[in-house]
Amino acid sequence: MSFEFELLARDPNSRARAGIFHTPHGPVPTPVFAPVGTAATVKALSPRDLADLGVKLLLSNSYHLYLRPGDELVRDQGGLHRFMAWDGPILTDSGGFQVFSLGESRQVDADGATFRSHIDGSLHRFTPERVMRIQENLGADIVMCLDECPEPHDRAYNEVALARTHVWAERCRASHLRPDQALFGIVQGGIFPDLRTASAGFLTGLDFPGYAIGGLSVGESKEEMHAMLDVVLPLLPETKPRYLMGVGAPEDLVNAVLRGVDIFDCVLPTRLGRNGAALVRGGRLNLRNARYAQDPSPIDPQCDCYTCRHFGRAYLRHLALSNEILGHHLISLHNVYFLVDLARQMRASILARTFAPFATDYLAAYPLPANERDVA
Amino acid sequence: MSFEFELLARDPNSRARAGIFHTPHGPVPTPVFAPVGTAATVKALSPRDLADLGVKLLLSNSYHLYLRPGDELVRDQGGLHRFMAWDGPILTDSGGFQVFSLGESRQVDADGATFRSHIDGSLHRFTPERVMRIQENLGADIVMCLDECPEPHDRAYNEVALARTHVWAERCRASHLRPDQALFGIVQGGIFPDLRTASAGFLTGLDFPGYAIGGLSVGESKEEMHAMLDVVLPLLPETKPRYLMGVGAPEDLVNAVLRGVDIFDCVLPTRLGRNGAALVRGGRLNLRNARYAQDPSPIDPQCDCYTCRHFGRAYLRHLALSNEILGHHLISLHNVYFLVDLARQMRASILARTFAPFATDYLAAYPLPANERDVA
Repeated sequence: MSFEFELLARDPNSRARAGIFHTPHGPVPTPVFAPVGTAATVKALSPRDLADLGVKLLLSNSYHLYLRPGDELVRDQGGLHRFMAWDGPILTDSGGFQVFSLGESRQVDADGATFRSHIDGSLHRFTPERVMRIQENLGADIVMCLDECPEPHDRAYNEVALARTHVWAERCRASHLRPDQALFGIVQGGIFPDLRTASAGFLTGLDFPGYAIGGLSVGESKEEMHAMLDVVLPLLPETKPRYLMGVGAPEDLVNAVLRGVDIFDCVLPTRLGRNGAALVRGGRLNLRNARYAQDPSPIDPQCDCYTCRHFGRAYLRHLALSNEILGHHLISLHNVYFLVDLARQMRASILARTFAPFATDYLAAYPLPANERDVA
Repeated sequence: MSFEFELLARDPNSRARAGIFHTPHGPVPTPVFAPVGTAATVKALSPRDLADLGVKLLLSNSYHLYLRPGDELVRDQGGLHRFMAWDGPILTDSGGFQVFSLGESRQVDADGATFRSHIDGSLHRFTPERVMRIQENLGADIVMCLDECPEPHDRAYNEVALARTHVWAERCRASHLRPDQALFGIVQGGIFPDLRTASAGFLTGLDFPGYAIGGLSVGESKEEMHAMLDVVLPLLPETKPRYLMGVGAPEDLVNAVLRGVDIFDCVLPTRLGRNGAALVRGGRLNLRNARYAQDPSPIDPQCDCYTCRHFGRAYLRHLALSNEILGHHLISLHNVYFLVDLARQMRASILARTFAPFATDYLAAYPLPANERDVA
């Protein structure tokens, strides 16, 4: 089965591109934002809500599904698509990020990682081959190599971790069986240009159908993130999709698309939604704030999501203060729409060759990273 | 403004009726089940979900909205319909039931009740006139008299409370201002046929556009509930709708429609949904049970709700065990549909003159109250 990436347009003024990544569950138009369904559900949104919002790709987490309900149970229920009733494309991560986030509950060695479940403390082990079997059982369209995501400024640790990540990428590739799953390699290397360069070189040598950039948006500055994207993206083949893992702030999406990224995922819109915060151009509204107590206007009068077409801030504030599920639902719905629609707008402007002014205009509403004030 | 009750059909074998209650926000076909939106939201369901399910009437709670966000705020936001984006008929209770449920946090006197908020302990007072003003501010189509709902077996207390309830009914009626709101009287009297008879007589003398039966499903047996319905309903005018407050178990709906009830409300379907329990013919499925861990079948293969058309028990169990909001949503959706659809089926069979066999067949799946085993 082929996972063709159709490159439809390149922005003449930046490295931005628009394309289509073809998967067994349909095409993914890029740039694209994928909301996260950690436990086989995007929190507070149903599959029909997601389809209504124009979601084209979902991410789900192997670590969580492996622990509960178990990847073999998901397989026996017909795979993740059928289990969660989402017939569109799905991407699963390898579980590495969650395992390495467990801190003292895990131990890494050259062969993999041993860890304790955050649910019941039971002992588990992930190796490259094991996470491939788990992801086969889940059955996503796009699957990820096991990688290690270290603190980005620790040079010595990044060198050790990167060597492991490369060996694991080779082992994942060798162990990859299902032709209906595209296995992506993950570029690591912290904030170190030479490590990032080496990683991109090594992984492109393995010829993956797509490449992820990991280890960013994990504590480094925006300038450092942009610098790493500037190093890595020109080294990746134009003919393959590029996926920036875990990034979801609107200004980060625009800055990354400018640098050549195609795919994003993040828990941000749903996490903010459950906390009563709504994404708007230039920032966020904290709907719990007393200033909205009597405000009948929608989150964003320009937005045409269900929430903005029907509900005022005073009502959403009431729901948030009352901790009502409908508040989580309605604000998450708006936030996911906000990012899905941003990706759609970027795509349209790239296709129309107007992305440079679009990006300049969009970013003008956001504070600039300190060292980029002069260039923008 | 007139609130006409159109009586379309009477069942030849019971007191069951089918009709239409006309309100300023549209017709309510009866029998009807109204889900409860305590805090101006039916928990975990959006207004478009409710419309999809065929919901024709919503109930909301004056006590809760008075305390948060405040009835005046709701009025200033355009009233409850606009605030919560539900354009169909709404019924509000008077708040009395919640106040009298507060136990030691409230004191009742002949003029009303003083109570402490369950949210912040602040002191408040409800009188008949006050609850009319609150319900005017909220702006529901159907509003309720202030009544006292005592423990049903305490004869002495029921006598005192009933006298107050009747005075308050007169005061509510005298204080009723908005012609676009129908004020219903509430028959009380515990499990005592003579008190119920007196209450029905007194209230029908005040000529309300509809009558509620309160003080049932609050601790008495099913036999006692049925006996009180058998006493009260023949005393209420045929030309007015009858509303049995707080009743939502499927077998109770059928038994009450057999006895002449038109309108029901209950938190049951959404509360069960949040606890992982699904209504099915004859009982409930506890979806947290291990027996459903690998079960791919829907809650009910015959049901055509969104949940049953797309999701299996194994998935719903996973959501319930993971405490995922989508689990609350999907199971609540099924449960509300179950009761709305039951009311719709009862209505159709009354109109088709086939209600007696429908009810017999339906109730056969449920255990009978002890003293009714012979008669059914």
